[in-house]
Amino acid sequence: MRWIRFSDGGAPGYGLLEGTRIEAVSGDPFNGWQRTGRTHALEQVKIEVPVIPPTFYAAGLNYVAHIREMGAGHGLNIPTQPDMGYRASNALIAQGEDIIVPADATEAVQYEGELVVVIGKQAKHLTEDNALSCVLGYTIGNDMSERNWQKSDRTFWRSKNTDTFKPMGPWIDTDVDLDAMQTEVRVNGKLTSHFKTNDMLFGIARYLSTMTRYLTLYPGDIVWMGTDGVSPNLVHGDLVEVSITGLGTLRNRIVKEGVA
Amino acid sequence: MRWIRFSDGGAPGYGLLEGTRIEAVSGDPFNGWQRTGRTHALEQVKIEVPVIPPTFYAAGLNYVAHIREMGAGHGLNIPTQPDMGYRASNALIAQGEDIIVPADATEAVQYEGELVVVIGKQAKHLTEDNALSCVLGYTIGNDMSERNWQKSDRTFWRSKNTDTFKPMGPWIDTDVDLDAMQTEVRVNGKLTSHFKTNDMLFGIARYLSTMTRYLTLYPGDIVWMGTDGVSPNLVHGDLVEVSITGLGTLRNRIVKEGVA
Repeated sequence: MRWIRFSDGGAPGYGLLEGTRIEAVSGDPFNGWQRTGRTHALEQVKIEVPVIPPTFYAAGLNYVAHIREMGAGHGLNIPTQPDMGYRASNALIAQGEDIIVPADATEAVQYEGELVVVIGKQAKHLTEDNALSCVLGYTIGNDMSERNWQKSDRTFWRSKNTDTFKPMGPWIDTDVDLDAMQTEVRVNGKLTSHFKTNDMLFGIARYLSTMTRYLTLYPGDIVWMGTDGVSPNLVHGDLVEVSITGLGTLRNRIVKEGVA
Repeated sequence: MRWIRFSDGGAPGYGLLEGTRIEAVSGDPFNGWQRTGRTHALEQVKIEVPVIPPTFYAAGLNYVAHIREMGAGHGLNIPTQPDMGYRASNALIAQGEDIIVPADATEAVQYEGELVVVIGKQAKHLTEDNALSCVLGYTIGNDMSERNWQKSDRTFWRSKNTDTFKPMGPWIDTDVDLDAMQTEVRVNGKLTSHFKTNDMLFGIARYLSTMTRYLTLYPGDIVWMGTDGVSPNLVHGDLVEVSITGLGTLRNRIVKEGVA
């Protein structure tokens, strides 16, 4: 099942996407829904951010090659436990919307292609065996980062949460084969990163079971699972496409503020 | 004007508190409201968390004595710019609800009494002069922290965002005199911390103007402004009361999980 959040002139709502047709539902996948019989052509609606999360979680260092690269010279070690970070909803944008890079950002603006877990049910005290039972489905995130701010600031507030720095979408797939997934990132059509999506330091079940020892997950919460490898510096006009097997492709263009 | 979020058997709603009487409103202070004429006695309703924020911001090191204490031996310096952190809504509890300390927490469980800024209007590119124009009002927060997890973990996910670790309330005051405010914290009635609330390293206007260079604030967002001084370790049964001049007193009891 493929959930899409979209708008067609009015307020955003949810629908089921089959091929290129959307059937609108009343309600939403988190609190109950019913088919309406109303259909829309995918190419005629605006795709919206698939969910505005109550809490926006992000696993930081969760793939070995990324840790080696980011940690070079900065004393980062391979984590021994799955500590969870946070991102902020102000930064979310949908499929096709522009990533606006502030005029005072440095040249070190980079992508991070990530698998996103969308929580469907309230959950606490999950075990690794039953952890995935709270998951509604999966989508794609691009954890855009300004690397010099990331190094100079005490937190990630501006390096990772500047408005438009968190593209997410295009939709949520409920039936996936995690072990068959490959993440690929292309810049202007050229493949620049690829890795096995589920080749994580700590897997999804381990993260969710560890987190829910202490905290309650709620319907609509999202957990971004981290990235592998490195990104080139992105410049004005670049088209960034993050693809994950079975989930489609998340496409956004880089626009540098103040460039004519 | 004093906004209270409360429930009386049904779903939470907003009201205006005058003395010990609440007049319920339809709508809410962020999106528009109207008086209903229905009134309730304060002591007969359940006080709810005053707002569930879209984004939960927290200034970390914003008072000099707290930085000196927390930084001793850990290389923390006085910040040169106002970097913003994040907390998570799962951890919010209301006036009178218990702070549940997990069974595996160490003895270093401490309070942080904080002024909370509640955003009322969408805002970007604020100046220091007009920054407070986006503020609806103010309330009190207690940034409960497990200090050993805070030191050992890579992030604050469990040290500060364990369920129930973020008491907030009791209500929102729109008319305050920031410079007249004193923050006082009492444990079992004994004064254990007190400081001038507005004696911040970076003030509210400076924070909001800096943040909105890069990010949009939305109605209902909250910004916790940090704390000064130090807390004793809290134990099962302790009553923690955070008072700020004009805002009332936020009261919550410590309950250690697994203690009979």
